[in-house]
Amino acid sequence: MTDRQPLGVGMVGYAFMGAAHSQAWRTVGRVFDLPVHPAMAVLCGRHAGNTAAAATRHGWAAVETDWQKLIRRDDVQLVDICTPGDSHSEIAIAALEAGKHVLCEKPLANSVAAATAMTEAAERARQRGVRSMVGFNYRRVPALSLARRMIADGRIGTIRHVRAQYLQDFLADPQLPMMWRLDRERAGSGALGDIGAHIVDLTQFLTGEQIAGVSGLTTTFVPERPRADGSGQYARVTVDDAAAFLARLTGGAMATFEATRFAVGRKNAMRIEINGSAGSLAFDFEAMNELQFHDHTESPDTGGFRRILTTEPSHPYLEAWWPPGHGLGYEHTFTHQMRDLLEDIATGTDPAPSFADGLAVQQVLDAVERSAADRSRWTEVSTP
Amino acid sequence: MTDRQPLGVGMVGYAFMGAAHSQAWRTVGRVFDLPVHPAMAVLCGRHAGNTAAAATRHGWAAVETDWQKLIRRDDVQLVDICTPGDSHSEIAIAALEAGKHVLCEKPLANSVAAATAMTEAAERARQRGVRSMVGFNYRRVPALSLARRMIADGRIGTIRHVRAQYLQDFLADPQLPMMWRLDRERAGSGALGDIGAHIVDLTQFLTGEQIAGVSGLTTTFVPERPRADGSGQYARVTVDDAAAFLARLTGGAMATFEATRFAVGRKNAMRIEINGSAGSLAFDFEAMNELQFHDHTESPDTGGFRRILTTEPSHPYLEAWWPPGHGLGYEHTFTHQMRDLLEDIATGTDPAPSFADGLAVQQVLDAVERSAADRSRWTEVSTP
Amino acid sequence: MTDRQPLGVGMVGYAFMGAAHSQAWRTVGRVFDLPVHPAMAVLCGRHAGNTAAAATRHGWAAVETDWQKLIRRDDVQLVDICTPGDSHSEIAIAALEAGKHVLCEKPLANSVAAATAMTEAAERARQRGVRSMVGFNYRRVPALSLARRMIADGRIGTIRHVRAQYLQDFLADPQLPMMWRLDRERAGSGALGDIGAHIVDLTQFLTGEQIAGVSGLTTTFVPERPRADGSGQYARVTVDDAAAFLARLTGGAMATFEATRFAVGRKNAMRIEINGSAGSLAFDFEAMNELQFHDHTESPDTGGFRRILTTEPSHPYLEAWWPPGHGLGYEHTFTHQMRDLLEDIATGTDPAPSFADGLAVQQVLDAVERSAADRSRWTEVSTP
Amino acid sequence: MTDRQPLGVGMVGYAFMGAAHSQAWRTVGRVFDLPVHPAMAVLCGRHAGNTAAAATRHGWAAVETDWQKLIRRDDVQLVDICTPGDSHSEIAIAALEAGKHVLCEKPLANSVAAATAMTEAAERARQRGVRSMVGFNYRRVPALSLARRMIADGRIGTIRHVRAQYLQDFLADPQLPMMWRLDRERAGSGALGDIGAHIVDLTQFLTGEQIAGVSGLTTTFVPERPRADGSGQYARVTVDDAAAFLARLTGGAMATFEATRFAVGRKNAMRIEINGSAGSLAFDFEAMNELQFHDHTESPDTGGFRRILTTEPSHPYLEAWWPPGHGLGYEHTFTHQMRDLLEDIATGTDPAPSFADGLAVQQVLDAVERSAADRSRWTEVSTP
Repeated sequence: MTDRQPLGVGMVGYAFMGAAHSQAWRTVGRVFDLPVHPAMAVLCGRHAGNTAAAATRHGWAAVETDWQKLIRRDDVQLVDICTPGDSHSEIAIAALEAGKHVLCEKPLANSVAAATAMTEAAERARQRGVRSMVGFNYRRVPALSLARRMIADGRIGTIRHVRAQYLQDFLADPQLPMMWRLDRERAGSGALGDIGAHIVDLTQFLTGEQIAGVSGLTTTFVPERPRADGSGQYARVTVDDAAAFLARLTGGAMATFEATRFAVGRKNAMRIEINGSAGSLAFDFEAMNELQFHDHTESPDTGGFRRILTTEPSHPYLEAWWPPGHGLGYEHTFTHQMRDLLEDIATGTDPAPSFADGLAVQQVLDAVERSAADRSRWTEVSTP
Repeated sequence: MTDRQPLGVGMVGYAFMGAAHSQAWRTVGRVFDLPVHPAMAVLCGRHAGNTAAAATRHGWAAVETDWQKLIRRDDVQLVDICTPGDSHSEIAIAALEAGKHVLCEKPLANSVAAATAMTEAAERARQRGVRSMVGFNYRRVPALSLARRMIADGRIGTIRHVRAQYLQDFLADPQLPMMWRLDRERAGSGALGDIGAHIVDLTQFLTGEQIAGVSGLTTTFVPERPRADGSGQYARVTVDDAAAFLARLTGGAMATFEATRFAVGRKNAMRIEINGSAGSLAFDFEAMNELQFHDHTESPDTGGFRRILTTEPSHPYLEAWWPPGHGLGYEHTFTHQMRDLLEDIATGTDPAPSFADGLAVQQVLDAVERSAADRSRWTEVSTP
Repeated sequence: MTDRQPLGVGMVGYAFMGAAHSQAWRTVGRVFDLPVHPAMAVLCGRHAGNTAAAATRHGWAAVETDWQKLIRRDDVQLVDICTPGDSHSEIAIAALEAGKHVLCEKPLANSVAAATAMTEAAERARQRGVRSMVGFNYRRVPALSLARRMIADGRIGTIRHVRAQYLQDFLADPQLPMMWRLDRERAGSGALGDIGAHIVDLTQFLTGEQIAGVSGLTTTFVPERPRADGSGQYARVTVDDAAAFLARLTGGAMATFEATRFAVGRKNAMRIEINGSAGSLAFDFEAMNELQFHDHTESPDTGGFRRILTTEPSHPYLEAWWPPGHGLGYEHTFTHQMRDLLEDIATGTDPAPSFADGLAVQQVLDAVERSAADRSRWTEVSTP
Repeated sequence: MTDRQPLGVGMVGYAFMGAAHSQAWRTVGRVFDLPVHPAMAVLCGRHAGNTAAAATRHGWAAVETDWQKLIRRDDVQLVDICTPGDSHSEIAIAALEAGKHVLCEKPLANSVAAATAMTEAAERARQRGVRSMVGFNYRRVPALSLARRMIADGRIGTIRHVRAQYLQDFLADPQLPMMWRLDRERAGSGALGDIGAHIVDLTQFLTGEQIAGVSGLTTTFVPERPRADGSGQYARVTVDDAAAFLARLTGGAMATFEATRFAVGRKNAMRIEINGSAGSLAFDFEAMNELQFHDHTESPDTGGFRRILTTEPSHPYLEAWWPPGHGLGYEHTFTHQMRDLLEDIATGTDPAPSFADGLAVQQVLDAVERSAADRSRWTEVSTP
């Protein structure tokens, strides 16, 4: 496959995620050596005018207002789903059945049932050579890819603790108006599904283990918010503002998780620390170009957490970027995601995270919610 | 009261805590202006020779091998209990009944029953002007005293989150021999009672709220360890190696707690972060002269976590120490504790933390253990 | 001017800087609302094949191998010079005389004489509405733009100290082969001109003052390096490996500067701290999304350096990017540079940093070299 | 020598340094196993009443108001000089000639001439078994002792850069009244001698090299200050407020130094970073229990500055203190100093830093002042 036969991408949705994906599609072939190049073929949105403006802005060649038409277009080989979670399953299953590769933003779906159906559709499609990936973009932070590699190489030994937090503060003001992210129908859950999902996926990705059981607690600090229409009326918040849970991994480790949008001063503090028998790793997305590593096999005399600046040519994805010390930003997690997906499509490899990985996350979140609803009772995570 | 009539101190135990207390008794009157000075009158230990050597080393004027004799001595007005937790209640109650002020190391006792009896004895003694304090020394870290003052002054508003961890790694090596801290009979519990107790007390101290309910999880990674006698035989570890729990405070905040001795690379990382509606505070004992503060009422343009170096003359306890930037160490938490206790005794004030505060911690730990034993079921903390 | 009449850009050179500029030209119109959009019209390089490949890779529509032809093309209204410093003056002066706007990478030139000629050409062109800018991209790090704004607003008062370092380590290995950056003919100077130039410009930009006099010291740790041709022969390094100098600013502040490529472990540590009478600011490019600020007008009780995460919508350039806490990377300094230059061209504003600013930097570097050659004697910086 | 024959200490001066030394003399024998114990025999000050009060406070057994009497007392074998620098030489030389060991606070003297005379006296005394030490206490910060050991062991290879700063801010307010530290007669110099002296000594101690030549710059930001007598009159500040200098070490390294009391927000930021061919070390006294170490021989993949928490039993001086992670404070640098001095006296070893080391520092400071007075001209440091 050469540049003369690029892979046509059709993207559904153009809000925050759509902007980030567009920038990645535009950039990936300029930075990485790709076996197949993407063509930004079609952007799909409900409102024709807005969609056309967004397409011009972000560089998409055509527009559609009906995702079913998008799926049927010959110039689209890959469907990129950037809509809220309640529409994921319908679009993704239809696209896969139409033989289109699918990249679906997280969470995979708002329910285990929907995620299961999607995973089954992905499995059927896979047998026909159609690829699918769920967009847990943080796996592609170089520091976290490096962490995965180090853990797989045994650098920290047997995992004993995971300590993961995703802290934001944008809801701390009780006068902030209602939004779709606070509506269970649209969003599925609150902090738990929106940001907690990332740290669940990362834990399973980094450790290579599964979360086996949980004890959960959720809370809604601000149960009503002013409607965004300026009517002066209030709407009920139907999701959690914050969620926390204890867990055990399949390998015996103990884990703690917390996701909140009320930690004032923490803007996007997605943090994970993993302690093993032979070392520890720690990461905070607010310093995304750094990985902290403690090698417990060293002499105590000179041991300590070291700050690896993950900008060396030998670090994941860095072979294509700038010299050491010249950091990357948030958007590049998507560039890396597109790189890997395009390589997988070209080489016939199953992408990761798969829909099954997305379903596994959903099952953990579901167990947390069931536990939280049942006085934090220990709850086993279902397995497919 | 003048230097000519010092307050005689009799200390029981002379291991790690005894050494730390001795250094504090020796120093407190040299640094602070005190209404009453301590006299290091008597050291008590079981083995006469060792006790005498320790007394010489640490500067105690006399020795006893029977704590009951110590309590009866006329030159002892204050009994300082530095023994393992299983002996606290008997010594403390006897001392209080003998009209001696008591400083008792934490945990107050190994069981709620024993802690309750001690608290009742303290209350009876209090009515006769006899004072008692439990040794949660970390309350006297200047940064944490300052944090308490700032929270009481409303600087962070309504508390929404507490995130507390006490991370050590000294048990990570499975070949480390058995010790009394791993024996439930002597120690009461493991990481939970030894170090978890500190973060429970700090949470209640800093927020001015109580922990209302918990969901707990404990684990023992290394169930057997070589006996210290070199026999080659193994002994059962009967306490937790690590404990974690979710909690709610009486004011509605959500909290997460973790205590472990298996977090390799973390040496004494007692960390607490508190997010309120108007600001956040964060602390890590590994950088004990710093308090992190985010003032959420500032402009987002220039807001951010600031590192307060808690070495200014206006900071708690600092009026007596060195110029700004010349930090204090671990031992000074005890110096401050002795200062406050002596002031309270001289002025007839009830010291804090009281035995009731120690009991309150014990009740939280007990609820955690009951929850952990019952599949992490949500468990209300009993109140006296 | 509308999107239908974009501004044609012709770029000369396509190595490291060329790649960074290309990514910025490609991105700027997708992220920012621009009054005029750039068209990536022509890429110019000496070798036809390589240039064509680079143009394809980076998205340039056409190629030239002769920069003089590039300048004459009607589809080029702006010439972007990304070549080594020895060719800057000839290209820039010709382009300006041909009525083309010019963006010239730093250093402006390898000598004061060349920089002076360029500045004069820029002034002549300016009077005909032709704009020019020198590429000190670090001015467009949001944290540093914010620092400039805060200083201009008086937030740190009168400047008393500047402490600036640019630390890299890529030359620490004495076996690293000779390269053009180590050849005085091509590069002008070594660490001093390559990276020291940035901290000189930043100091003058941030403080709004000039460097009035200097005392300099330079050194070459590795005077000979293996030729890159693998011949086994050695070539002389004719530039400094490291440079340091003391300085006074026009407002009376004392300043220290250091630039080196031998600070092992420091990858791109461009650091600057400024102490004023009312506050301090500190920055390290290795954590480019953070600005440290100490407000000395606050109570000492709660004062301290705060870490401003410069990702708020109110921060410079951030209105167009991602939500708070989602950091930017190195490449975006160029995106911001192109945004400002395009706005200046569209609105008829003089861009900053101007060629005169570039000349001012060159005069400081020249004074440093003259001082270093004369036993560090205090040397006034010439003014145009 | 046993505890029954302690070494009598007579201390002259009881201000800040006197308080710090007293605490150290009181503590050293309680913490360390010593071959000879100190007796706090006599405190000497000019005002009888104040001296008596200080002696009671700090635990000295007797008082003198005439240092010449102190020197003649039979119960004084060691004279500890804590007065301002202008009196050091007279007291120290007399004490040494009287056969008393001497510990003299830094700076050794206010002039090279006086320091030379002291060094000669120390050499004569040494031949009679009388020991002398100058009080550069920061050598005994465990992190810096460890750094010395690591450099001596070759862990960072050949030294290429030293970057040292001592930043304080207590003079930033121009209304702060005049004090003896700002009077050249009493203090010798300002920031240069008071705090710059420490980083000069540390550089020579850590690297094992000498400062060979310098180029200096000094400034006085506030030339007049209100008299402390409240008269409303102003007094001239006759010392530097800030000093900076460039230097070369005997081994070829380039170094930069800065000392100031006008760096607002920096309280006691004594910082030193050393870059060698094989690694780097960095330290900041504001985090005194940490040493940063980059091992450049590691794979770039996992390399980076590590934070060594210098609280392990294997770290210098730590064998006698608390468990890992339980940090030390400023005062313990003096405890360690007294430990080493007492061991040296007991074992007949020459203490370090010697008076010759103190003279070497003075010669560097003198060269800096001469250079600063001569337009920063490069100035060789005299050698004895």
